[in-house]
Amino acid sequence: MKFCSSCGAPVRLRIPSGDSLPRHVCDQCGTIHYRNPKVVVGALAEWEDRILLCRRAIEPRYGAWTLPAGFMENEESTAQAAARETWEEACAHIELGAMYTLIDVPHISQVHIIYRARLLDLDFRPGDESLEVALFGEKDIPWDRIAFRTIALTLQHYFDDRRKGAWPFHNLVIGAPPAPGPRP
Amino acid sequence: MKFCSSCGAPVRLRIPSGDSLPRHVCDQCGTIHYRNPKVVVGALAEWEDRILLCRRAIEPRYGAWTLPAGFMENEESTAQAAARETWEEACAHIELGAMYTLIDVPHISQVHIIYRARLLDLDFRPGDESLEVALFGEKDIPWDRIAFRTIALTLQHYFDDRRKGAWPFHNLVIGAPPAPGPRP
Repeated sequence: MKFCSSCGAPVRLRIPSGDSLPRHVCDQCGTIHYRNPKVVVGALAEWEDRILLCRRAIEPRYGAWTLPAGFMENEESTAQAAARETWEEACAHIELGAMYTLIDVPHISQVHIIYRARLLDLDFRPGDESLEVALFGEKDIPWDRIAFRTIALTLQHYFDDRRKGAWPFHNLVIGAPPAPGPRP
Repeated sequence: MKFCSSCGAPVRLRIPSGDSLPRHVCDQCGTIHYRNPKVVVGALAEWEDRILLCRRAIEPRYGAWTLPAGFMENEESTAQAAARETWEEACAHIELGAMYTLIDVPHISQVHIIYRARLLDLDFRPGDESLEVALFGEKDIPWDRIAFRTIALTLQHYFDDRRKGAWPFHNLVIGAPPAPGPRP
């Protein structure tokens, strides 16, 4: 951020009076520009013993598999966001269940939320942001080509909980991945 | 938003190609400015059969009582935000428990999250944003002076769950309050 979105003057990064963190402050009109974490919401939709995955047609992680999920929009609930993203990415009709995982990803200032869901029919197809959409049983999950760690973690808990026959809500935190360094 | 925060040129509200919602778009540098819901996080801290409330020293709802809570910052987890806000508003030392309520407030584009917590000592005092901080038993809760509906709802569930002796995670949605209209 270089300019004030209210008046167009240059902004300066400084700690406002009464605050404890640096913010982009406009000295011309006084606006303080806050930046806050973003919420990503999606759905884990079941059809019998298989679950719905989408192969990404966009960056990041073009070509990798994921649960349908995306940035929550203003003026919607997390449940509405989960259903909307499932429709946009997989054109799938679902009945939403309970919130299943909430995973903090502080190093990228995101909170990832996945709802459980039931696929209502097999009339799904790739939306604009997907190359393909398919159902996977546990043994067929492409673990080495899952797009995001929060999605892999949600899938691991899902298959684990399915074996146990219990579906607790999982609140987890993911740290930064290890930096790629010189290998010994 | 009137000006591009990247280049300072005026922005225009239009639906970008491939999108479905109007965004503030800069036609000079091409930046699309997204706006997303904000996450508010706080803690319901117990001391024996009482819970910690703060009386607000800031707007909105100056003078009303609330659980310590505030906007989640970039690069922190929801749990870190809950502990930080409890420290800032009540200077209270807590041990954080499980995430307890997540309440969608779509008409103001917010998600409110409250963790359960255990107060570690009685050495609390008002932070800069509080007029006073105090412990309340169920019968003393100032229900008509609770600052926000999400806080009142969380407190109602808390006392209800305490009677039942079970602490499920609650995922709820709050709609817009009825518009003030002419009274009959």
